[in-house]
Amino acid sequence: MRAEESTRRVAAVRRRLTDLELDALVVTAPENTRYLSGFSGTLGYLVISGEGAEILGDSRYWLQMEAEAPGFTLVRSVASSGLLALLADHLKRLGPRRVGFESQHLTVDQHRRLGGSLTADVALVPTAGLVEELRMLKTPHEVELLRQVAGIASRAFDRVRSAIRPGLRERDIAFLLEQTFRELGADGPAFDTIVAAGERGALPHGRAGDRELARGDMVVVDFLEQTRVIDAVRQAQTESMALMRPGVTADAVDRRAHDVLAGEAHAFGHGLGHGIGLMVHERPFLSPSDQTPLQAGMVITNEPGIYRPGWGGVRLEEMVLVTEAGPQVLTPASHEVRVG
Amino acid sequence: MRAEESTRRVAAVRRRLTDLELDALVVTAPENTRYLSGFSGTLGYLVISGEGAEILGDSRYWLQMEAEAPGFTLVRSVASSGLLALLADHLKRLGPRRVGFESQHLTVDQHRRLGGSLTADVALVPTAGLVEELRMLKTPHEVELLRQVAGIASRAFDRVRSAIRPGLRERDIAFLLEQTFRELGADGPAFDTIVAAGERGALPHGRAGDRELARGDMVVVDFLEQTRVIDAVRQAQTESMALMRPGVTADAVDRRAHDVLAGEAHAFGHGLGHGIGLMVHERPFLSPSDQTPLQAGMVITNEPGIYRPGWGGVRLEEMVLVTEAGPQVLTPASHEVRVG
Repeated sequence: MRAEESTRRVAAVRRRLTDLELDALVVTAPENTRYLSGFSGTLGYLVISGEGAEILGDSRYWLQMEAEAPGFTLVRSVASSGLLALLADHLKRLGPRRVGFESQHLTVDQHRRLGGSLTADVALVPTAGLVEELRMLKTPHEVELLRQVAGIASRAFDRVRSAIRPGLRERDIAFLLEQTFRELGADGPAFDTIVAAGERGALPHGRAGDRELARGDMVVVDFLEQTRVIDAVRQAQTESMALMRPGVTADAVDRRAHDVLAGEAHAFGHGLGHGIGLMVHERPFLSPSDQTPLQAGMVITNEPGIYRPGWGGVRLEEMVLVTEAGPQVLTPASHEVRVG
Repeated sequence: MRAEESTRRVAAVRRRLTDLELDALVVTAPENTRYLSGFSGTLGYLVISGEGAEILGDSRYWLQMEAEAPGFTLVRSVASSGLLALLADHLKRLGPRRVGFESQHLTVDQHRRLGGSLTADVALVPTAGLVEELRMLKTPHEVELLRQVAGIASRAFDRVRSAIRPGLRERDIAFLLEQTFRELGADGPAFDTIVAAGERGALPHGRAGDRELARGDMVVVDFLEQTRVIDAVRQAQTESMALMRPGVTADAVDRRAHDVLAGEAHAFGHGLGHGIGLMVHERPFLSPSDQTPLQAGMVITNEPGIYRPGWGGVRLEEMVLVTEAGPQVLTPASHEVRVG
């Protein structure tokens, strides 16, 4: 990450601190730590106050923190004390009174231990979603990275599609896909690859297994064939995607897709889509419980599906950039695969 | 997982419930859900009471739960409510008074939402580590699985070692390793593969990057060469491993390794090792803060190291089964690699 980008993000956090009358924010969620500082390791805490920006880590990560998070002052933990104890000590030295913490990430145990180490005049204030809110809006550079990733995924599917044939196991296809991702320049898949053949296509989050493909099997590699069902799913996607404009709320987009499929048995029981960025699933969520108004700069998936137990499944998935001019699909054309 | 194994584990939980005077335990940590029920997906809660054993999930996981967790009764969440709301409803129907929850996993937000949905006469009791404690002791079958994994890793290193040469990038080696893991039958690596060449060997948790190997570089693929330093690290490992017997406490084993390396600059700042099983890091931890007495049936890593900024690093890692007869190394002989 470029240093000026980190500086801009930390400044945005400081404005939120002022709004919330907080003296400091403690950041513990790894993806938020990475977003603000650039540090990509799994264990490091940030403390951001009006003037200061520190990153706390143990010796395994010091060199990486210095290299990746130059905008942050490194606070080193000594061998025998845990990172939470270091955080408490550091806060005692800083002396803030109102300290925000990530209540969507800190566990009940961690919260109790941290609170127990601080004096009674320090208030730990839950600030769930503060950094996640900043992450919803993507910069043009971030959109470009997501577009590149979508392009790699698409080219990988194209290559693998031509290799699919009866006798291959689901896990062979998963491996082939992952191999191709790497060859095309990705670090690797962001989650366990989903390949589910035949009636296992009814498992939306199935793991690739040993089932061999049989002639005529539909293969869910997130996209599939079977005409009428596909048409219905596509209709739900088209109509709901048209709503992905600034000002429309997330739940309204989700509702439209469910309305289109109201007559279908086994229409998707999950939300229609989700923000995507540092995490595969991040805010906003196209679901009944999220009333976030969409804004230009958000990147959100649109992935309606129908999953019939004993038959199989169809899901169509696109990644969409919300712009002032309307939805812009970042994923190249979708793919359909038939074995036989 | 075999059904009788799940039954045995649930019975062990029930005995702990009796000890702790709890009416029910809510299990939310994915690895604990998997350990008890067999369900391998990422989102599913368990409720275990004196008589009942239920698994709660949304529609994405119903088929998988039925297939993988036959010993549990499936409680289905409806489309629009979250899993936490379903859990609260389910608990209201069951009517327990004292409900254990996993305070090492449940976030502050989740705890507050769950508590807010229950009536005032229900007590949520933190039970951090209840299931983790059961997981510390491995059955002979589990030990056999870990031994197989160690064997695959070893054969993969052997194959990849012969392919290492100047000009290869760290990430090429990482990819080659992962590819070989797959070919040998593993689902994939349990964590991002660590390959760090030359002075980047001083990053204990470095990620594989674009650095090319130069003639004479030491390559950390967890094990390396450089005679005197290796000898010191090996001495720390040998002496501390001899202590890995029933009754010796975890911190004493860690202390011995640090004592052996007391004269070395940049000896490891992390704990000496950790339990391994469903998670790469699980209890017990060979560290100053863990006084767990070792027991026969525990599988624990022993991985001392020396990491010198600007020079490189050495770590020797073994996986050890604690037996009544003493430590038994599950990993085949360790490897040393020199480029050039």
